[in-house]
Amino acid sequence: MSDPLKIAVAGLGTVGAGTVKLLEQQADLLSLRAGRPLQVTAVSARSRGRDRGVELSSFAWHDDAAAMAREADADVVVELIGGSDGAARAVCEAAFAAGRHVVTANKALLAMHGAALARAAEAAGVTLAWEAAVAGGIPVIRTLREGLAGNRIGRLQGILNGTCNYILTTMRETGREFGDVLDEAQHLGYAEADPGFDIDGVDAAHKLALLSALAFGAEVDFDGVYVEGIRNIAAMDIEYAGELGYRIKLLGIAEMNHDGIHQRVHPAMVPADAPIAAVEGVFNGIVTEGDYVGTTVLEGRGAGAGPTASAVAGDLVDIACGRRAPTFGVPATALKAIPSLPMDRHVGPYYVRLMVIDKPGVFADVAATLRDCEISFESVLQRSRAPGDVVPVVLTTHEASEASMQRAIAEIERIEAVREKPNMIRIERGAME
Amino acid sequence: MSDPLKIAVAGLGTVGAGTVKLLEQQADLLSLRAGRPLQVTAVSARSRGRDRGVELSSFAWHDDAAAMAREADADVVVELIGGSDGAARAVCEAAFAAGRHVVTANKALLAMHGAALARAAEAAGVTLAWEAAVAGGIPVIRTLREGLAGNRIGRLQGILNGTCNYILTTMRETGREFGDVLDEAQHLGYAEADPGFDIDGVDAAHKLALLSALAFGAEVDFDGVYVEGIRNIAAMDIEYAGELGYRIKLLGIAEMNHDGIHQRVHPAMVPADAPIAAVEGVFNGIVTEGDYVGTTVLEGRGAGAGPTASAVAGDLVDIACGRRAPTFGVPATALKAIPSLPMDRHVGPYYVRLMVIDKPGVFADVAATLRDCEISFESVLQRSRAPGDVVPVVLTTHEASEASMQRAIAEIERIEAVREKPNMIRIERGAME
Repeated sequence: MSDPLKIAVAGLGTVGAGTVKLLEQQADLLSLRAGRPLQVTAVSARSRGRDRGVELSSFAWHDDAAAMAREADADVVVELIGGSDGAARAVCEAAFAAGRHVVTANKALLAMHGAALARAAEAAGVTLAWEAAVAGGIPVIRTLREGLAGNRIGRLQGILNGTCNYILTTMRETGREFGDVLDEAQHLGYAEADPGFDIDGVDAAHKLALLSALAFGAEVDFDGVYVEGIRNIAAMDIEYAGELGYRIKLLGIAEMNHDGIHQRVHPAMVPADAPIAAVEGVFNGIVTEGDYVGTTVLEGRGAGAGPTASAVAGDLVDIACGRRAPTFGVPATALKAIPSLPMDRHVGPYYVRLMVIDKPGVFADVAATLRDCEISFESVLQRSRAPGDVVPVVLTTHEASEASMQRAIAEIERIEAVREKPNMIRIERGAME
Repeated sequence: MSDPLKIAVAGLGTVGAGTVKLLEQQADLLSLRAGRPLQVTAVSARSRGRDRGVELSSFAWHDDAAAMAREADADVVVELIGGSDGAARAVCEAAFAAGRHVVTANKALLAMHGAALARAAEAAGVTLAWEAAVAGGIPVIRTLREGLAGNRIGRLQGILNGTCNYILTTMRETGREFGDVLDEAQHLGYAEADPGFDIDGVDAAHKLALLSALAFGAEVDFDGVYVEGIRNIAAMDIEYAGELGYRIKLLGIAEMNHDGIHQRVHPAMVPADAPIAAVEGVFNGIVTEGDYVGTTVLEGRGAGAGPTASAVAGDLVDIACGRRAPTFGVPATALKAIPSLPMDRHVGPYYVRLMVIDKPGVFADVAATLRDCEISFESVLQRSRAPGDVVPVVLTTHEASEASMQRAIAEIERIEAVREKPNMIRIERGAME
């Protein structure tokens, strides 16, 4: 039996404790698959006393995670602290400086400093592995980096945030409103007390920026991602989506074309029979389009201790076996600075819900505005009649540019009978470019 | 730039020519991802003259594939000849004897001789890579072997044959009968002139035996797979399945329990809202259950030149990078000879369609037979009335053992008013054991 791979774990929250537990419970299996034992030697967390449901007494304890990364008897440091700077970043930098591999689940850190960290890892001749950072247990990183290495990826789209998908799925299944379902999700532990990071799309955007870098061989450009969350989705919109043959999902979409990369996170209506529409509840799903392989769909649990620990363990087995790959699939020096395209370059069909006073002539004003902005509509729905009261009117458009659409919406909002800000949701039919 | 990885391609059918084309068209990309060029140096096929749509003049030509594997200037031999013995096997053995890696798309060969070939590769210190052998472009092999390496896999199920899935999907969408759709599939090139290998489940069984070996760390046991094809599925069964909330799929299912591995390929009714039910047409899909990761679903194109070449290219990039893994995830010597459980050990719900004379008392006889076999039914459907004529009666059962069910069916067949052999289809609700 070869020497064990010695592992230092920084951060003992749910995922850290889950990882330690997996490494202990699956020791025999991992040793067989890796050809050598995987052995935790050191751990670090803020509070030593807390009961985490795993036995830690045989590991060296460090109060300072960066010091552990530098000094512990370890070949690899597992960074599960989280956060885009501070302790997490210090741990990675210390590990690289000491010539140690890093396995991380930290999407925020990589979205902000991915290129710099990839260069640091390469300079040190070590691996920076991050399967756990995107879509939890779904092996999407190795799929893009290795399994589909023979393909040019033209487009990918994903449901990358389980909290949002749980909320949207529950709204559809129960007909309840966003705020009500969010409260419940917080109660069940599916949403944080401060939910903005998830429901405003930031977490999905971190992950999209990383997938995009990997798929297109580009430097991570989180600032280039257009981001819009799900707070504006009403129960009514979900009901109309169903009537129109769609489901509403928070999608992350990345497309490469001659001018650059278009990266966007926003609620989207997808055909109810598309594979991505079937990804429900806390599950994540990613659809990729490769020029040889065609469409590939991956689906699974995107968060939680078990799935995340599973992804960390996969990376550790790779390192133990000596299977190495560049952080973003190609050498860090070869990553291209590809421009990110602005959202107003987007072209597609749209859903718009207006709340209007039910009186003759209102729709003529809306139709005239659309015509002036060169947008043609595909369908108009006004289900309820209530003369003099406010009623919803829903329209879907043919392909239109985002710039025209935004102009039209601003104009429509000025129509006197339109009583709320129009709610616009992009329709994604998912065709290859 | 490092030395190129030199590649000899044995077999220039659709997949072989597609692989040569991919390696040429994606040369820059592959070189970047692999850190060195991937260069075809030699090719072999039966007929030199044929136009295959790719330029072959710069490669050394060999009439004898095994001689090429032995003598060509190559680091790796890509075996795309097919067949469980003969030339394909000779090529692999010659390559190993000459210390060359092998990449193959040959499921029949591996299903029959997988353990012996894995041992030969290990003895020679080379890689035997076979991503292309199962589910075409879907990276299921590396997912099980590497991505989910931290998990004990309890169960996997897959749609592993695109021909059968195309036929069943088309039958459902059009209401047409099996023979009619098969004719069309042959015409379109989705089914072979001699379709038995696909529609009788043999191809799916080859793939299941391989996935099962990889998932459970067991020696490949193709003979232990229970196999039943789709010839008996009638348009009527597909219609009833829809009414009952199911879709009919040819599934490969492997489960591990304390007594052994249960491997079976047969048509099954799956809930219409299960992820596997959404895998339609020529697509393949695989659902795995890991103890930490939970359910993971992979879906994509399971056959064809592009997807298969994509899988071959992924394996070649791994070899070029020095990323190596044992053939079945663990050293060949550590593969366990786990007994395969016989089909009569299966327990589950069943669908049974009877063609009976429509007269009073027939169902009482059927019900009595079921009671005597200790099978309780869940639902009974008789849609049409035609006193004195033959009509379908459909029943679904609660959980029953295969042994009891087979006994009951033999008994029911003896009832005078039952005019055809009852058609039995297993229902798979897909729960973890």
